[in-house]
Amino acid sequence: MSIIPILYEDDCVKMIDQRLLPTQEVWLEYRDYRSVAEAIVTMVIRGAPAIGIAAAYGAALGAREIEASDFSDFTRKFQPICEELAATRPTAVNLFWALDRMKDCACSHQFLPLPDLKHRLLQEAHEIAREDLAMNEAMGKHGATLFPEEGTILTHCNAGALATGGYGTALGVVRAAVEMGKKIAVYADETRPFNQGSRLTAWELQRDAIPVTLICDNMAGALMAKGEIDGVIVGADRIAANGDVANKIGTYTVAVLAREHNIPFYVAVPTSTIDLSLADGSQIPIEERAEREVTHTGDIQLAPSGIAVRNPAFDVTPNRLVTAIITEKGVVQGDYANGLKALFD
Amino acid sequence: MSIIPILYEDDCVKMIDQRLLPTQEVWLEYRDYRSVAEAIVTMVIRGAPAIGIAAAYGAALGAREIEASDFSDFTRKFQPICEELAATRPTAVNLFWALDRMKDCACSHQFLPLPDLKHRLLQEAHEIAREDLAMNEAMGKHGATLFPEEGTILTHCNAGALATGGYGTALGVVRAAVEMGKKIAVYADETRPFNQGSRLTAWELQRDAIPVTLICDNMAGALMAKGEIDGVIVGADRIAANGDVANKIGTYTVAVLAREHNIPFYVAVPTSTIDLSLADGSQIPIEERAEREVTHTGDIQLAPSGIAVRNPAFDVTPNRLVTAIITEKGVVQGDYANGLKALFD
Repeated sequence: MSIIPILYEDDCVKMIDQRLLPTQEVWLEYRDYRSVAEAIVTMVIRGAPAIGIAAAYGAALGAREIEASDFSDFTRKFQPICEELAATRPTAVNLFWALDRMKDCACSHQFLPLPDLKHRLLQEAHEIAREDLAMNEAMGKHGATLFPEEGTILTHCNAGALATGGYGTALGVVRAAVEMGKKIAVYADETRPFNQGSRLTAWELQRDAIPVTLICDNMAGALMAKGEIDGVIVGADRIAANGDVANKIGTYTVAVLAREHNIPFYVAVPTSTIDLSLADGSQIPIEERAEREVTHTGDIQLAPSGIAVRNPAFDVTPNRLVTAIITEKGVVQGDYANGLKALFD
Repeated sequence: MSIIPILYEDDCVKMIDQRLLPTQEVWLEYRDYRSVAEAIVTMVIRGAPAIGIAAAYGAALGAREIEASDFSDFTRKFQPICEELAATRPTAVNLFWALDRMKDCACSHQFLPLPDLKHRLLQEAHEIAREDLAMNEAMGKHGATLFPEEGTILTHCNAGALATGGYGTALGVVRAAVEMGKKIAVYADETRPFNQGSRLTAWELQRDAIPVTLICDNMAGALMAKGEIDGVIVGADRIAANGDVANKIGTYTVAVLAREHNIPFYVAVPTSTIDLSLADGSQIPIEERAEREVTHTGDIQLAPSGIAVRNPAFDVTPNRLVTAIITEKGVVQGDYANGLKALFD
């Protein structure tokens, strides 16, 4: 079974520290919402669905600490907790989706006694986590039918078990294809500057005995030109109503290359990643992260001191380059505006 | 003045150790051809023209050690020295070109007394180095006219002073444009896995006060999509007779992206990089380098132990994606087969 990167046990949230993989498997424990927010900011946990789950558990931990005279007092104290969790990262919409769901849950259960309300919020976080795993398994089944019986699939970043409540989105489709008996090998882009591909995708596929070969991001084009890649699958941090896809920086380049070589480019997401409130990808906020991620690896300096750096963490792939969007409710192709909307009807 | 990375002084060859840049400026001294060959293999020096110069000096150092009764005895001993130097790296054709020139020089001066022949070979290496610098300055003048009065140019890898006998090929064109008064800023791809962009291009442009911003290789596409890049210029390790360009891995991806965004893609090379003996790029041998370059940075492990890795050091950009090839003899555009051939007539 694939790893589950975030658990609730012994009255605390436990996360595998993804910054230390692949060389160390360390589980960290979180007992308050502020430390969960910090874990999201510092990327102990990352990946849009996993961020959503972490935020939901963070909100449940935050609620646990509240002492309130009535529900309006509770809400006054719960709201800033949710805001602090929401301010951790800007691009993945699952974060806001999960927090909205926790706030809605509180609202729906406002007549419960406070201890029961807190318990209900923890149950809601558990449900978000369980549903995510189930959605990934459903997504896998839908998506795996698109893969060839035998082939090599490129993925960028980590949209795997580690990025979700387990099983993975893009890598969930890979897992499902392998479980169906398809002979699938994976090329993993290392995914600079945070190396989610080399550190996380390579690690979790190797752990599950799925054949995986690591490459630098700049090698995918040359391998496509040689006919060594049959398809591309990635996850996403947010998909706009028209099907434009925000995902890890470099995804757009892979999509352009896939189109140039007539290779299908698939995006696998739970519907919680789809943001119908944004007409197109130009409206998706793109996080710029610290320069040091680019200039250093650990303490090793790779660039001259004082150099100017750009470090956008995400880019937007226009819908025209996307062959299909795979969700837990089915596969959308072609007319994304209507197809994505229909998923929510 | 831009740096010159390889010099002959005090009866020895001196090279700046490019593996230690940008944090340490260490000059290494070489007194025999075997250590020069080792310096090429281990990438103390790299970049097609600089490799050619190093090989020429290596041959001169090798010749210096030869004790021979006559020219045929000299040749019997000089040949394996040149072969050892030729076996250091397979893709850059300047290596073979420079060694052929040294062998031709020996042949042309076979009637000189042995000490004079050795001296003549050292002079030939000096000439190769001096000519390279002069060619880069000429290339710069031809190429700079192609640049806009003001704009941002992307480069990949290091085709700068450090890759040549000084001034640079691609970066020589940038320098010439700046010297002409054009307002040029540079985006430098970091160029995984060896980081020639972050370590070398960023360093030498910063040193010459040319505005430079470092990005990861996978960010260029997103910046092009935002209109932040006006042109691309790279060097090459070998250009086939039809204009196909072998250059640092990732160059092909940049060329595909440039075409997608209607951005000119220029290649700047001395004619010694053009190999008319190969009909097209499919015949250019592509070096695969050690897995550790991809899996580790220094001693920091970035991928799980035992992971499969691909590490092609170069790729081939087909001529159709090349806007112009800039040489010391002028600019070739459109019909590369005839245009490149004409450079040698």
